[in-house]
Amino acid sequence: MQKNNGEGLDAFFAMFSPRSVAVVGASTHGGKVGNFVLRSALASRVDKVYPVHAGGAQEILGRTAYPSIEAIPDDAVDLFLFAVPQQHVLKTFQAAVAKGCRGVVIFTAGFREAGEEGRRDQQRLRAMADEAGVKIIGPNTLGFFRAQSRMNATFMPVLSDLFTEPGAITLVSQSGGVAGFGAIRFVQDDLPLGTLVCLGNRANVEFADILNFCAQDPHTAVVALFIEGLDDVRCFFDAARRCAAVKPVVVLGAGYTEAGRKVARSHTGSMAGAQAVYEAAFRQAGLVQVRTIEELVDTARVLSLSPPPRGNRVGVITHTAGPAVLASDILARSGLVLADLSEATKEALVSKGVLASFMPPNNPVDLTTFGYLDRCLYVDVLDLLAEDPGVDAALAVCMSGLGDPNVDAFPTERFGQVAARSGKPAVVAWGAPADAHEEFGAWMRAGVAAYPTAERAAVALANLYRVSRLQERPKDPAPPPHFPQELSDLVENLRASGQAHLLEHQAKRILEGAGIRTAPTVLATGEDAAVFAAREIGYPVALKIASEDIVHKSDVGGVALHIPDEEALRRAYRRMMETVARQAPHARVEGVCVQPMVPAGTEVIVGGIRDPQAGPVVMFGLGGIWVEALKDVAFRLAPATEADAREMMEQIQGAAVLDGLRGSPPVNKDALARLIVTVSHLMDRFSIGELDCNPVICHDDTYTVVDARMSW
Amino acid sequence: MQKNNGEGLDAFFAMFSPRSVAVVGASTHGGKVGNFVLRSALASRVDKVYPVHAGGAQEILGRTAYPSIEAIPDDAVDLFLFAVPQQHVLKTFQAAVAKGCRGVVIFTAGFREAGEEGRRDQQRLRAMADEAGVKIIGPNTLGFFRAQSRMNATFMPVLSDLFTEPGAITLVSQSGGVAGFGAIRFVQDDLPLGTLVCLGNRANVEFADILNFCAQDPHTAVVALFIEGLDDVRCFFDAARRCAAVKPVVVLGAGYTEAGRKVARSHTGSMAGAQAVYEAAFRQAGLVQVRTIEELVDTARVLSLSPPPRGNRVGVITHTAGPAVLASDILARSGLVLADLSEATKEALVSKGVLASFMPPNNPVDLTTFGYLDRCLYVDVLDLLAEDPGVDAALAVCMSGLGDPNVDAFPTERFGQVAARSGKPAVVAWGAPADAHEEFGAWMRAGVAAYPTAERAAVALANLYRVSRLQERPKDPAPPPHFPQELSDLVENLRASGQAHLLEHQAKRILEGAGIRTAPTVLATGEDAAVFAAREIGYPVALKIASEDIVHKSDVGGVALHIPDEEALRRAYRRMMETVARQAPHARVEGVCVQPMVPAGTEVIVGGIRDPQAGPVVMFGLGGIWVEALKDVAFRLAPATEADAREMMEQIQGAAVLDGLRGSPPVNKDALARLIVTVSHLMDRFSIGELDCNPVICHDDTYTVVDARMSW
Repeated sequence: MQKNNGEGLDAFFAMFSPRSVAVVGASTHGGKVGNFVLRSALASRVDKVYPVHAGGAQEILGRTAYPSIEAIPDDAVDLFLFAVPQQHVLKTFQAAVAKGCRGVVIFTAGFREAGEEGRRDQQRLRAMADEAGVKIIGPNTLGFFRAQSRMNATFMPVLSDLFTEPGAITLVSQSGGVAGFGAIRFVQDDLPLGTLVCLGNRANVEFADILNFCAQDPHTAVVALFIEGLDDVRCFFDAARRCAAVKPVVVLGAGYTEAGRKVARSHTGSMAGAQAVYEAAFRQAGLVQVRTIEELVDTARVLSLSPPPRGNRVGVITHTAGPAVLASDILARSGLVLADLSEATKEALVSKGVLASFMPPNNPVDLTTFGYLDRCLYVDVLDLLAEDPGVDAALAVCMSGLGDPNVDAFPTERFGQVAARSGKPAVVAWGAPADAHEEFGAWMRAGVAAYPTAERAAVALANLYRVSRLQERPKDPAPPPHFPQELSDLVENLRASGQAHLLEHQAKRILEGAGIRTAPTVLATGEDAAVFAAREIGYPVALKIASEDIVHKSDVGGVALHIPDEEALRRAYRRMMETVARQAPHARVEGVCVQPMVPAGTEVIVGGIRDPQAGPVVMFGLGGIWVEALKDVAFRLAPATEADAREMMEQIQGAAVLDGLRGSPPVNKDALARLIVTVSHLMDRFSIGELDCNPVICHDDTYTVVDARMSW
Repeated sequence: MQKNNGEGLDAFFAMFSPRSVAVVGASTHGGKVGNFVLRSALASRVDKVYPVHAGGAQEILGRTAYPSIEAIPDDAVDLFLFAVPQQHVLKTFQAAVAKGCRGVVIFTAGFREAGEEGRRDQQRLRAMADEAGVKIIGPNTLGFFRAQSRMNATFMPVLSDLFTEPGAITLVSQSGGVAGFGAIRFVQDDLPLGTLVCLGNRANVEFADILNFCAQDPHTAVVALFIEGLDDVRCFFDAARRCAAVKPVVVLGAGYTEAGRKVARSHTGSMAGAQAVYEAAFRQAGLVQVRTIEELVDTARVLSLSPPPRGNRVGVITHTAGPAVLASDILARSGLVLADLSEATKEALVSKGVLASFMPPNNPVDLTTFGYLDRCLYVDVLDLLAEDPGVDAALAVCMSGLGDPNVDAFPTERFGQVAARSGKPAVVAWGAPADAHEEFGAWMRAGVAAYPTAERAAVALANLYRVSRLQERPKDPAPPPHFPQELSDLVENLRASGQAHLLEHQAKRILEGAGIRTAPTVLATGEDAAVFAAREIGYPVALKIASEDIVHKSDVGGVALHIPDEEALRRAYRRMMETVARQAPHARVEGVCVQPMVPAGTEVIVGGIRDPQAGPVVMFGLGGIWVEALKDVAFRLAPATEADAREMMEQIQGAAVLDGLRGSPPVNKDALARLIVTVSHLMDRFSIGELDCNPVICHDDTYTVVDARMSW
């Protein structure tokens, strides 16, 4: 187990199921936050609730109030809810700690998001809490709600009325607003909510802590996250990966655009990182990413109700083609296919009179208006799909009768039974307004995820399929590359030399030491040395200026390619020295690097950066304008596995280039994957700041790193 | 006015507001379509309803029934609703025509979608209808509903209960199911529906006909379309463009993937075309494209309530940042920006005490929990944004109190008044379940488009902005290019010669005749002629085999580039002749084309095809692997305007390449736009089957068509 899991988790369990709760700043005035919070506490299933009112009220909402925390007639109070002004929070917190609290929810705003002073206050809070082993939800939070213990630690007492049944989904959000909008989706969809946690400004409870808790929590089957930015992507990643290994985790990221980022920053004080790095970390950790709050809840719902499909073949049942067309487009774009029905299924569809005489037994199984009027046909078809070995999942589309007494009720219970028995997921697009609670409630009781539009049903099924794919990912069997002692020595020596940027031949020596194939490169410190080196290497050769002061060599005339012979070499050498001296007069020039011309092939880039939040990151992309015009690159946290590397190669838009276009042979993906993995381990192991193998020229047998840059 | 608009539109108005209706196939049995249809007719505001029951029932649902159409005691019946078996439809139709009908709705399935015989029946139906000037909705349709006349011509009588108020939106769908799911969105959102039309298999009423009607219909302010495929893209395009010029048209296309296409085909009998061509036609016609039924209705709603913004600067008001971050991401991706608030606005936000003391006056204006508790602050802020000349639109995010009596009601009416007075659109994300009808109803009465999630509000505002951009598009002032008589003569001569594929120099003569700049190309019929031509042109030159039997010249060794001098030319010529003779022994070789080597530049492709449904289409893309690996091309129906051409250049993913990357100069977009426009006019004017200028090499001053292929 990880550190913090022992005592830390105890504190969470104590906070989420407390025996006693104090509301500090409880208000007598119905419109104040301190009144809302007290009403929430009173709506909870908890033995003791102590209102604290510094103004001297004797009683609030029928409960005895106390003038101070010290005055509470109890040795220890598990949970404190703070609705006090910002300037009183620190002192109040000390008193709560003295009263033996395990957790505190601080609704008050004005900390990290409100400038330097607030940031300092939050740091003090954190230090005090860490020392006392107390967990803080907030500050600047909506708080939390836990359906199992019926603990409502928010300023929305109405949540206690809305969520009376415990659910299996835990929703964790930085933002109280998104938690609120998310909770409303649960209400609207009659979906029971398990635990709702708003982290707010995260004084000492981070997403990683809650994920560790969720992994252990017997009441959590599915985790849904809303993230506006992370301080420590790496810490989140580790916790998320562990949690996703035992239960599905869905994530909605925001603040990806410059505009969204600004808003997120001004709010939480955390600056959102680059979208590509976040998305890479989510993907790598095995999280399913979604784009809206609605999709977050929709996906959590299907995950809480249905098993993942064993394959990608979907049978669609409908009485109307249009919505099935919309659903099919979405399924197809997500890698799902319309199943080819078995001959037995087709025959049964016809012989059992399920289909209208003029309808061929195709998939989608279109029951036409007969299906609208006789809903038992849906169960008949699902029975057949359940038996068909070529069908992995079902999607049914049906319009509600909208209260028309002449339209039969749908046999939801039988439909759910057939689906459950089959072990295959079945989702339903139920054409009714979201307020048809009786009808959607029947689907929920039948254990079937039903959505009010075909598109939402299809997206939910697609996300269920993505979870199944994530679960199937190979647990990389290959050991990390072996780096010999000499490589460590070389790296340490070069680092000790104090150069910020390595010269090309130095960077390549490190790569070669790690077993990476590079174009042989010789540093020649004069013209004759260059001629000698070229003779050894064999013409044609390339010359490149060697100077740690010159990063972009071609910008100062420091690159000469396709040099056919000695005479041309000497001319090129002299011209280069003149030009560089003119264009970069202050650069210290070590000489020139001489290397063979590598035959043309497919150019790619493999590199690495050290992200301020995510640490070492490996990058892959196609060379040249692909990166510049399309930003078409894939990232992974380092070290990456071979499976990660293969996903990176598939993920880029220009992936087809790797398979060979216009007569080019395909690149050797095995070799390229190993290169990516090795670079990722180099980044991770040696604290490299930036590494850029660019270009890497790929042929059908292997690759060659033609140029390389590296800095600490 | 267009043909058909006169009499055709009269028939539509008569059908949508009939004086008399006959239900043929009216059923005594509550669960039959013929009974549902009769109940719908009886729920309509229409003087006379005549049930026709061939089985001899005297009375159905309290109305006298007639054994045949002939027996109806009325000289003329405006509208017929057919719920009769397929085999009786044609005969029944004849009787209806004889009874003076103006429109017929045929619910019956089994026509075009059901194989050869059904297809023939539909053709007969069409011929009869066209001759009689009768409009047919269907066959295989849900029918239509018109709120203004309260005519319910569907098999869903419940629609009459659901839509009691006339609305300004007309929803047109091929699919009854999508119309049904769409109608349910209207019900859920308390959005009044105007007219709902399901075209079904479209015997003689097409989208184009309904669009012509909508353009004239005083009750339609916004048109929403669902399209699974079109038989005649061009006809649709013309009608859509005319309609979109007078009122906004939103479109949801489906059947774009292979899977979706198969479903669409099996249903409607119409094969959907390529997504790119459809999307191009929609865009070019000025339609706003959406991705889901929900977005279709959401967009129609905001268009029916709000004026388009005059610019792209949005002020966001919220009490919680998270949803504002989600909204900002969506706005930013749609070209909208968070407005910089004026100093006056900022000062007022602070001096009027609108903001909490710790909140800076930024955009989003974050009212924090104070805004949740005191909703009047929203009106105060909107007042300031209304006055701020740097703000074009507002988006407000607020959570409902969810019935908590201590949370004040939102002053929706005042908010709506301020928005209306300002002339700027304001949309609201109202955090409540969709069944909070009272709250959403208040927003609707206030004339404000309110959505239950921040994402949907942002998408609606983004689509409203897209409409404003479409309305601002320049009405191309440039006249079409002048094609001289000699060009027409040349084209006719070449076409008359019977060659399927033109030789390169022939294609280029046509291009040159149209004023397009091409690399000079000389057909040389022997080695000495090639030498002579090269001397005239100037070395280095390129040689290409000239044979109408050889389309892919480089595949058979028919291309030699960078030929520096006469000796090399002679060698290259002989080698080419040998290789081609070996590789393409049966090709008739006319000689070789000699042309100068064009200096390197940015390579693009400009071409045209004749689409089976859309007719002449012009295409633009970047050269080489961009097209092959990314399919990164833009299409427009030909002829295209200069504005279209510029949008094509902006639309491709690799658009940045045109602006110059890695030190390349930018291309001359004026020249390139003229090339695209000219090619589009060539395609349109001369019925060219396929034209491919590839590559076109662009420099900062002009472009040069280096190679060209053309066929009829």
